[in-house]
Amino acid sequence: MKQNVETFIGCDADYAAARIVLFGAPFDSTTSFRPGARFGSAAIRHESFGLETYSPYQDKDLEDISVFDCGDLELCFGSAESALADIEKTAAQIVNDNKLPLLIGGEHLVTLANVRAVLAKYPGLHIIHFDAHADLRDDYLGAKLSHACVMRRCFDLVGDGRIHQFCIRSGERSEFAFAKEHTDMHPFDFDGLEALTAQLKKDNTPVYLTVDLDCLDPSVFPGTGTPEAGGVTFPQLLTSLLLVSRTNVVGADINELAPMLDTSGASTACACKVLREMLLALY
Amino acid sequence: MKQNVETFIGCDADYAAARIVLFGAPFDSTTSFRPGARFGSAAIRHESFGLETYSPYQDKDLEDISVFDCGDLELCFGSAESALADIEKTAAQIVNDNKLPLLIGGEHLVTLANVRAVLAKYPGLHIIHFDAHADLRDDYLGAKLSHACVMRRCFDLVGDGRIHQFCIRSGERSEFAFAKEHTDMHPFDFDGLEALTAQLKKDNTPVYLTVDLDCLDPSVFPGTGTPEAGGVTFPQLLTSLLLVSRTNVVGADINELAPMLDTSGASTACACKVLREMLLALY
Amino acid sequence: MKQNVETFIGCDADYAAARIVLFGAPFDSTTSFRPGARFGSAAIRHESFGLETYSPYQDKDLEDISVFDCGDLELCFGSAESALADIEKTAAQIVNDNKLPLLIGGEHLVTLANVRAVLAKYPGLHIIHFDAHADLRDDYLGAKLSHACVMRRCFDLVGDGRIHQFCIRSGERSEFAFAKEHTDMHPFDFDGLEALTAQLKKDNTPVYLTVDLDCLDPSVFPGTGTPEAGGVTFPQLLTSLLLVSRTNVVGADINELAPMLDTSGASTACACKVLREMLLALY
Amino acid sequence: MKQNVETFIGCDADYAAARIVLFGAPFDSTTSFRPGARFGSAAIRHESFGLETYSPYQDKDLEDISVFDCGDLELCFGSAESALADIEKTAAQIVNDNKLPLLIGGEHLVTLANVRAVLAKYPGLHIIHFDAHADLRDDYLGAKLSHACVMRRCFDLVGDGRIHQFCIRSGERSEFAFAKEHTDMHPFDFDGLEALTAQLKKDNTPVYLTVDLDCLDPSVFPGTGTPEAGGVTFPQLLTSLLLVSRTNVVGADINELAPMLDTSGASTACACKVLREMLLALY
Amino acid sequence: MKQNVETFIGCDADYAAARIVLFGAPFDSTTSFRPGARFGSAAIRHESFGLETYSPYQDKDLEDISVFDCGDLELCFGSAESALADIEKTAAQIVNDNKLPLLIGGEHLVTLANVRAVLAKYPGLHIIHFDAHADLRDDYLGAKLSHACVMRRCFDLVGDGRIHQFCIRSGERSEFAFAKEHTDMHPFDFDGLEALTAQLKKDNTPVYLTVDLDCLDPSVFPGTGTPEAGGVTFPQLLTSLLLVSRTNVVGADINELAPMLDTSGASTACACKVLREMLLALY
Amino acid sequence: MKQNVETFIGCDADYAAARIVLFGAPFDSTTSFRPGARFGSAAIRHESFGLETYSPYQDKDLEDISVFDCGDLELCFGSAESALADIEKTAAQIVNDNKLPLLIGGEHLVTLANVRAVLAKYPGLHIIHFDAHADLRDDYLGAKLSHACVMRRCFDLVGDGRIHQFCIRSGERSEFAFAKEHTDMHPFDFDGLEALTAQLKKDNTPVYLTVDLDCLDPSVFPGTGTPEAGGVTFPQLLTSLLLVSRTNVVGADINELAPMLDTSGASTACACKVLREMLLALY
Repeated sequence: MKQNVETFIGCDADYAAARIVLFGAPFDSTTSFRPGARFGSAAIRHESFGLETYSPYQDKDLEDISVFDCGDLELCFGSAESALADIEKTAAQIVNDNKLPLLIGGEHLVTLANVRAVLAKYPGLHIIHFDAHADLRDDYLGAKLSHACVMRRCFDLVGDGRIHQFCIRSGERSEFAFAKEHTDMHPFDFDGLEALTAQLKKDNTPVYLTVDLDCLDPSVFPGTGTPEAGGVTFPQLLTSLLLVSRTNVVGADINELAPMLDTSGASTACACKVLREMLLALY
Repeated sequence: MKQNVETFIGCDADYAAARIVLFGAPFDSTTSFRPGARFGSAAIRHESFGLETYSPYQDKDLEDISVFDCGDLELCFGSAESALADIEKTAAQIVNDNKLPLLIGGEHLVTLANVRAVLAKYPGLHIIHFDAHADLRDDYLGAKLSHACVMRRCFDLVGDGRIHQFCIRSGERSEFAFAKEHTDMHPFDFDGLEALTAQLKKDNTPVYLTVDLDCLDPSVFPGTGTPEAGGVTFPQLLTSLLLVSRTNVVGADINELAPMLDTSGASTACACKVLREMLLALY
Repeated sequence: MKQNVETFIGCDADYAAARIVLFGAPFDSTTSFRPGARFGSAAIRHESFGLETYSPYQDKDLEDISVFDCGDLELCFGSAESALADIEKTAAQIVNDNKLPLLIGGEHLVTLANVRAVLAKYPGLHIIHFDAHADLRDDYLGAKLSHACVMRRCFDLVGDGRIHQFCIRSGERSEFAFAKEHTDMHPFDFDGLEALTAQLKKDNTPVYLTVDLDCLDPSVFPGTGTPEAGGVTFPQLLTSLLLVSRTNVVGADINELAPMLDTSGASTACACKVLREMLLALY
Repeated sequence: MKQNVETFIGCDADYAAARIVLFGAPFDSTTSFRPGARFGSAAIRHESFGLETYSPYQDKDLEDISVFDCGDLELCFGSAESALADIEKTAAQIVNDNKLPLLIGGEHLVTLANVRAVLAKYPGLHIIHFDAHADLRDDYLGAKLSHACVMRRCFDLVGDGRIHQFCIRSGERSEFAFAKEHTDMHPFDFDGLEALTAQLKKDNTPVYLTVDLDCLDPSVFPGTGTPEAGGVTFPQLLTSLLLVSRTNVVGADINELAPMLDTSGASTACACKVLREMLLALY
Repeated sequence: MKQNVETFIGCDADYAAARIVLFGAPFDSTTSFRPGARFGSAAIRHESFGLETYSPYQDKDLEDISVFDCGDLELCFGSAESALADIEKTAAQIVNDNKLPLLIGGEHLVTLANVRAVLAKYPGLHIIHFDAHADLRDDYLGAKLSHACVMRRCFDLVGDGRIHQFCIRSGERSEFAFAKEHTDMHPFDFDGLEALTAQLKKDNTPVYLTVDLDCLDPSVFPGTGTPEAGGVTFPQLLTSLLLVSRTNVVGADINELAPMLDTSGASTACACKVLREMLLALY
Repeated sequence: MKQNVETFIGCDADYAAARIVLFGAPFDSTTSFRPGARFGSAAIRHESFGLETYSPYQDKDLEDISVFDCGDLELCFGSAESALADIEKTAAQIVNDNKLPLLIGGEHLVTLANVRAVLAKYPGLHIIHFDAHADLRDDYLGAKLSHACVMRRCFDLVGDGRIHQFCIRSGERSEFAFAKEHTDMHPFDFDGLEALTAQLKKDNTPVYLTVDLDCLDPSVFPGTGTPEAGGVTFPQLLTSLLLVSRTNVVGADINELAPMLDTSGASTACACKVLREMLLALY
């Protein structure tokens, strides 16, 4: 008899054989409004068994690719720096083994740890950011390490013009002003993504993709801490993921599913489907 | 004083006078993921009192047509064959009395029983199938009678080219391959429905319409066992129902509302509205 | 130390300085289906702290305008007339102080009290009405003061051709017939609003805007007592609010959020955002 | 085929044969805190199918007694007096037909209508009242007809010493003072009930029993608008019902189940069981 | 890196070393009322991480004993016999390896499969049964294999006087009559358990313990399909488990947690604690 | 017109006149399992309006005492030390003004800040601790400032024999061992409290009372992050609060209500009632 193993559906490759490695960061200590993103990665893994491994959109099947899922890290609540350090350590191992680290949050702050690890290997990294919120505050109630500051912290690492933001529809006035100076922001939707990805592909630029699932409209994805009306649809997100997948993606994450907030399960099912499409597209 | 009678709103005709007969099949034993469709028919009936009898879309009123609602069958849980036999028996009586049997699920498997009864009278029957899922597996974990196999079982009855599938966006690779050979599948949306219904109308082909409500996008209809992102909107479904209603519809069902999964009540309210529009269109 | 003050985010002006006054009417006694709108105003105020004060849609910030929020009235349940009298009294004070009374419901019936107060000052008032339901019944189970009759009662006050209804998709046949005779009804969506607001602006007509949030599609706004499939999107509503804001709006309300019905919080968050946009547009 | 009839389980006697008549009053317009009791009677009827007809506590079976269930009245929301008049009319008919009217609320105010009808026939009526709340206010925010005043209104009808209150653990100081003068109040539990019922039985006094289900501890019965910690257990309530049933009970009600507030269904199941035991005991 | 392993907390022994083997049967196809017990075993495993491994009641620690958890079986929905066969096969392997099979349901019917396997090795087996329901029907709507018949099917295997039932407070009159003839029934509570276990211990009788968690009062355990008021408390259940553990227990199960029905998580947490105490007591 | 003020019911004294000051610490960043305690204080304040100001248990009324409620602090998520510093600062001001600081959590860690402030003024302080959990770990996944360590941190401040723990029924073996050496632990219930409070009163020892509401049984109080079966009842807690109130209580808190986890509202209502009784007893 074998012990009980639980992975995202169809992601049962050996580590050595895998080109993509899934790992979860069940952390949401800095969430300022409605917590629960800590349960996101486990829910995605658990509920993936309601999903097919085959995608009719891409005519591809998870059973035909090699993905390894090492489960969730055990992270310290109450200390953001300590949690980030643990995430970065795992991400670095994956990157150093020449695999794509696909992190499942948790709150958006966890992105910072994965970006740190990927950037160490790919100094020319650009970041494509799908989100309802700008996440560009310099601090939030005094904290530099907050989900509301994560893209600002990424900016501290990569500098001007290398963060490309889409679907943004919420933030302080000062964040929008900062974006005008320092990032490539496309508010409300995915306008401009096609041109961007064409250019990045042409230059073979290494790309990190971070998907805050609240870029989706709350009608599609209510199960998140800070739902923002006026978001994109699932087909729009899917099309955009496929566009990004044509570039040289070297690291990625999806985050901010708070499964308990949508008791229907539709948000978790949607997150599972987004992850399946990402895996199939990025492989 | 009279005993408490509960029917779908406005459906209080005598049986003899009725041209359409509503009956519920509160069964979901083969549901493999999230059960609860067993409560669908009772919820639709109960919550219909929040609905108007008048449709501004069709400018028709339930009060002007004759529909009989005999309530829910009492079905055996744990034995699919036994439940199907009981449903078929009632359906056959309705069909033999020259009325249109409009079955309210329950899980999608119940369709098979209604189709059997209708097909016995209309051997040339075609089936129009709105669904997120192909439902074309030959078996599911060994079971031939499963919600995941229902259209395959219907195929066993009607054969090649007589099942017309719309909105399909989930299934195993082999189901999509089967569809290519044996059914008329239109993935993702209703493309092709207008041409199809024009042809069926021209030929006066008897038509069975099965509506798995999860063809709707989960934003509109989260209250179902296996919500699949990327579905159609309510206005798209309504338009499609009106197209189908122009053909010679001789049997129909709606299924897969699991009311407890959407505590807001919006899914149940939506199902009620779909049913009202179906009744008004099919009459 | 100061006592705990709770207002809608950014609405902390002095009464004297304020041009808009927010006040809540936590009343839903006549709700015939699913109650809970009584909790709408408090939830909007409380959950507004998850919202930014800045609108990227209008490039305006609540911190730059002066709004006063006096909280919720204490209303008598079980007597509609008594509750309406109390609301009207507060509204009249605000109007007489030359401020715009922005009422937060509560059920839709509360609109009547605010309209009475505003009409007393602006006899030429027109009413723009966004709603899924016609609300034109003469009585509901004998009650003249019911949420289902509120626009009929407003009609009793303003007469033919001065009520402009949009997004309407539910009602009895007789309500649609009444509308044909007496109101300016635009079913299903906002078609015709641009022309109407252009005319009203040209004439400098005083306008009252009543927004029943169930005009929104239930996918966007399930947290309401009577969700009606087939509604408008948030961006459509936003565009329409901006159109109306170009006219001479002298009173307004939003109503029918029943926050407990949407446990995800997305409906409440949406209502907060609608209110922020209204405040910024009407100022 | 027969139309769909829905009664409380096992209560399918003819009206003529029945000794007890169930009827529902789905009214909660005066509820000042959390509404939803309007759904109580329908939920009790609907969910009773999860209950056995046999009681091992009393070794009796609903199938052996004759109860008629005429369903829910259609009541006007927003006007307490009008709703009470309609309830009283039905109650009077039942009483005049020499049957025991067993009313299912709804909020507690509905008791007043049933008491009026019963008192008209039995002028010497005493009232036994199980409740967490004293319900002895003279008015509530100006309303005389409020759930918070219902026992005071009953007092207006029957006068000093004829209302016997048990389990009371909440009220204003003035209500407890009033009780000291005018009612027979037993706070917190059922102490004194045995002696009381012995005396009432000896005198063959006609008794009305009103059971506000929130007398139960919220652990047992959270599904109510105003849960009050420190209540009685189900076995304590059952024992007390049996004590009361030895007296000459000529009218009764249970009320204040708000089924949506307890999504587990345990509160509704408990109410069903209380009603079964009441029916078997009072028959 | 290791694949993600998920077991009940502290149950990470090798199979060879383990004296107790946990296995889950996520099946609820015959549930006649509210389904969801299929999710019980996974929820218990997943939520066990909120529990300590140490029991202050027994002063024992899961870290000091050897338990193996092989996870959930993949069972066919819709065919009770097929599911039972699969469960029995696994149970037989565990029994034949001289380990105690501790089955986690799922609905109560799954007990039958475990009993079959254990009985094959221990023909003198007695069954101790904690439950709110008698489960002694001969069939349920025609089905012999139903959760409502499970103890009757066990009776068919072991015969008169070898099933000892406690806490029973619901059933048809005929089930109580059957119990009087054929089983050792102790209604309502654990009266008689001490004497019984003393005798069974003295005789070294092999014992199977089946715990339907709905023996607990719904206040403690609302998360179950058919909550029955009037049950036992957690300390009472704990004391009784310790009494049973003194006998020669050779097989056991806990069942009927339906985690989605108690969104607070308290029922699942309670089930986890019951399982911890069972493991520590039976080891 | 006045701005909207929201305080706990009846707590509207001037700061100067108040003998008790309520303040909320909406913090739960270190919660390791189910978060949401951050919403506890606001929920208690908001829902208190369903409570009476009068206590029939103590025959006292909040309207007769002077309590000030300054609302919730705005705390930084993600940094426990920073949040504790902010809480301590407010507590110190209250203590220095010779008022009793009554802190409403938030997670249990917030107690540490209040204890620090009170201890600074009362070096001989003893702590009475009601809780399901020992909270005596030296660290939790590396974090010294964690809800699981709060009493250990208090121990670091006050030393041996000055922490008196009641109702404890969960912890690691090492925590129970630590308690044996260093604290005065009374597992499971309130045994020993009467003797303790008599002694503390006799010595006029300054006492800090910390009430983790999960000491209550989950049946009574499911709305908490880590519900532990086997707790005390509300009347037992009430009796114990009255015992403690006879001593010289100089600081206190209640914590760990996570209101979203109990959608019935019963847990929040219970917390409100506990707080009312504490206020009346400690005044």
